[in-house]
Amino acid sequence: MKVPEILLIETGHRPASLARVLEVVDAAGLTIESLEAVGRDREKTVWELTLELDEQVDEAVLRRIDAIPEVEVVGRSDRVFNRHRGGKIETVSRVPVSTVQELRDIYTPGVARVCLALREDPALAREYTHRANTVAIVTNGTAVLGLGDLGALASLPVMEGKAALFHQLVGISGVPILIDETDPDRVVEAIAAIAPSFGAIQLADIGAPRCFAIEEALSRRLDIPVLHDDQDGTAVVTLAALLSATRRMGLDLENASVGQIGLGAAGTGITRLLLAYGVGDVLGVDLDPRAVARLESLGGRGVGLEGLMANSDIVVAATGVKGLIRPEMVRPGQLVLALSKPEPEIEPEVALAQGAAYATDGKSVNNLLGFPGLFRGALDVGVREITEAMLFAAAETLARLAPEGQLVPDPLDRAVHRAVAESVREAARDGA
Amino acid sequence: MKVPEILLIETGHRPASLARVLEVVDAAGLTIESLEAVGRDREKTVWELTLELDEQVDEAVLRRIDAIPEVEVVGRSDRVFNRHRGGKIETVSRVPVSTVQELRDIYTPGVARVCLALREDPALAREYTHRANTVAIVTNGTAVLGLGDLGALASLPVMEGKAALFHQLVGISGVPILIDETDPDRVVEAIAAIAPSFGAIQLADIGAPRCFAIEEALSRRLDIPVLHDDQDGTAVVTLAALLSATRRMGLDLENASVGQIGLGAAGTGITRLLLAYGVGDVLGVDLDPRAVARLESLGGRGVGLEGLMANSDIVVAATGVKGLIRPEMVRPGQLVLALSKPEPEIEPEVALAQGAAYATDGKSVNNLLGFPGLFRGALDVGVREITEAMLFAAAETLARLAPEGQLVPDPLDRAVHRAVAESVREAARDGA
Repeated sequence: MKVPEILLIETGHRPASLARVLEVVDAAGLTIESLEAVGRDREKTVWELTLELDEQVDEAVLRRIDAIPEVEVVGRSDRVFNRHRGGKIETVSRVPVSTVQELRDIYTPGVARVCLALREDPALAREYTHRANTVAIVTNGTAVLGLGDLGALASLPVMEGKAALFHQLVGISGVPILIDETDPDRVVEAIAAIAPSFGAIQLADIGAPRCFAIEEALSRRLDIPVLHDDQDGTAVVTLAALLSATRRMGLDLENASVGQIGLGAAGTGITRLLLAYGVGDVLGVDLDPRAVARLESLGGRGVGLEGLMANSDIVVAATGVKGLIRPEMVRPGQLVLALSKPEPEIEPEVALAQGAAYATDGKSVNNLLGFPGLFRGALDVGVREITEAMLFAAAETLARLAPEGQLVPDPLDRAVHRAVAESVREAARDGA
Repeated sequence: MKVPEILLIETGHRPASLARVLEVVDAAGLTIESLEAVGRDREKTVWELTLELDEQVDEAVLRRIDAIPEVEVVGRSDRVFNRHRGGKIETVSRVPVSTVQELRDIYTPGVARVCLALREDPALAREYTHRANTVAIVTNGTAVLGLGDLGALASLPVMEGKAALFHQLVGISGVPILIDETDPDRVVEAIAAIAPSFGAIQLADIGAPRCFAIEEALSRRLDIPVLHDDQDGTAVVTLAALLSATRRMGLDLENASVGQIGLGAAGTGITRLLLAYGVGDVLGVDLDPRAVARLESLGGRGVGLEGLMANSDIVVAATGVKGLIRPEMVRPGQLVLALSKPEPEIEPEVALAQGAAYATDGKSVNNLLGFPGLFRGALDVGVREITEAMLFAAAETLARLAPEGQLVPDPLDRAVHRAVAESVREAARDGA
């Protein structure tokens, strides 16, 4: 894996000392991301040089730089870790508290009247508390990214990342909640006990198959939306990508055969949403017969990998197994979405070379496109659940906004998230 | 209760129309807080007039204002509710997410390396997550302010207020957690299940006697500080006030008789801290014999109210019962802290008139002086618990910083909280 390493390098003002540094970097075949003078005096300049290194930093390169006359590596750090330092989120006050009057209004004694008003009419919590803008981001760390069961604490950087994105993209307050339990009933109890604190629950990185029972039980029990990002979020973005691709290919998604390889949280979420959307023929394969049985109970068909590849117009893979799809399995004219990250089941170029009509990997089909707008829309309308109609609306919006040459839009484009939220609000109103 | 009502009033540009409005206000005996022109055109001016009204707004006053020629009341609102609108806190990102590079560093794929580092060494969570700066503010709403059991949701404005104060005073991220349970074991289970998310737990507004078992069980079970604000926070500020007062009176607190009226969460917290501090003679009275038994198990003595008043050099009352201390009970030379809010057990002026050497009510003895600095100090050092030595250090600092004529300092003075935090850090280091 490539890692952004930041080197602090002092160079004397001797001609070409910086050039000699870059020669060493070039000779080592390293990619320069940026170079900036961050300090300069009569004697020397301090440069911040960001390189894409392999995870194992090439110590020999640093020694060669250090060996250049009047050049010294005086510091190094990792940009990713730098950006996580101190945590990525914080809770801040939306009201100033500088005067006694402000204090008496937002805390005692003034707050007592607001509490009493909420007791009389709990619906006022929407207006006078942060609840209607606050989503718990809940995990037990049992399926963190593609890394497996890391435990609750080690997954916190991901949950903070989601909270940072919630704030930056749609102005939602995300609250990471780490649950130190793996038993599904206990996870459900723990979340239900604290649910009054939040306007919605986002489950994340909870492993299959337990995630299914947890999401179902919570959805039944709570009167606020519960969404499992790895299932529903991924499914929405995948449906959007399939809508884009099939329309461009002149295919009719509902009449296509879709083969899903891997029926974990993502694969199950995708097949469930496709079946609900009206796709008539959904095939699936998984090593776990219970996962296949789950698909069949939803209306899909369990098959073998070879049969799936031979009989599907569209193949979606979410297995975490690099290279699982052998090149010769690809059928000419097929649409292939190999979603596993960081390494897909088949490289898009390889699939295209085998005659696939369209192929992509998981980099662009990012669940980050789904959850911010879905929650923004759901919270704005105050729905009790996120319905399939809302998921479809979000997917249609993403497909509609996909620019030329991409299946889905840029996830950093704030306007995309606003449009998703608006379509979710409309679907909520239509369904009410 | 006085309520800040904001009136929006349009006046034509006829001479003295504003003066006539103020005449009506004056005649009704209402207090003007502020008057500001918030809009003006050729025809009229719009004034924002903030009045301290009784909770039942005097509709007759509004009608009389409306009756003035060329004057119209065009809007009214309540400043307290205005300040709560939309909630008082939010979660924000500490990192920008505008570029693909930033996204890839704080979310996938970069975040995966931080997760793996945390799995290898969980202690890195202090450095690379928000946990070490984050406190859960947990309640089940069973004893909200002096209002009793309002339930979890209705207590949210108080918890948000504490979170707003955490941010404004000491830069801590406070996360309100409402627990929809009253059974102590279930409350403990719910908090323990989510504890990995936080650097410390502040219990608040949980009713006695269940709060005692809850705090004890959590302190034993968790490896992060647990503090019950109504017990420990109030106790620290009360101890500070007693240190200030006794030093000014030339009394020696350790050799004084202290009588505690009301042995709920606050009263028990106060007596426990005073006994730990070394006060030799602590008397207590409560209607509940279990509360008295608890005091006696800590080393205090249960007595009757009359006996307590007759035999205490210092009287502290925290009963919520207005006027409980009859004037004739006050012993000349006594120090009387009647802490119940909004109405004390005896008005300070009445106690002083009866010969009390010093008397105050709960307005100045505000637990807001204690918890921000206590948690800031505890989090900074990363202690597993807040010890009595830290509570004493906080109380000593508050007593030391109390200005002439006050028992404790101004709670909005940020320097006070910094000083409390520093003394807690020192106590933590001394105890390590």
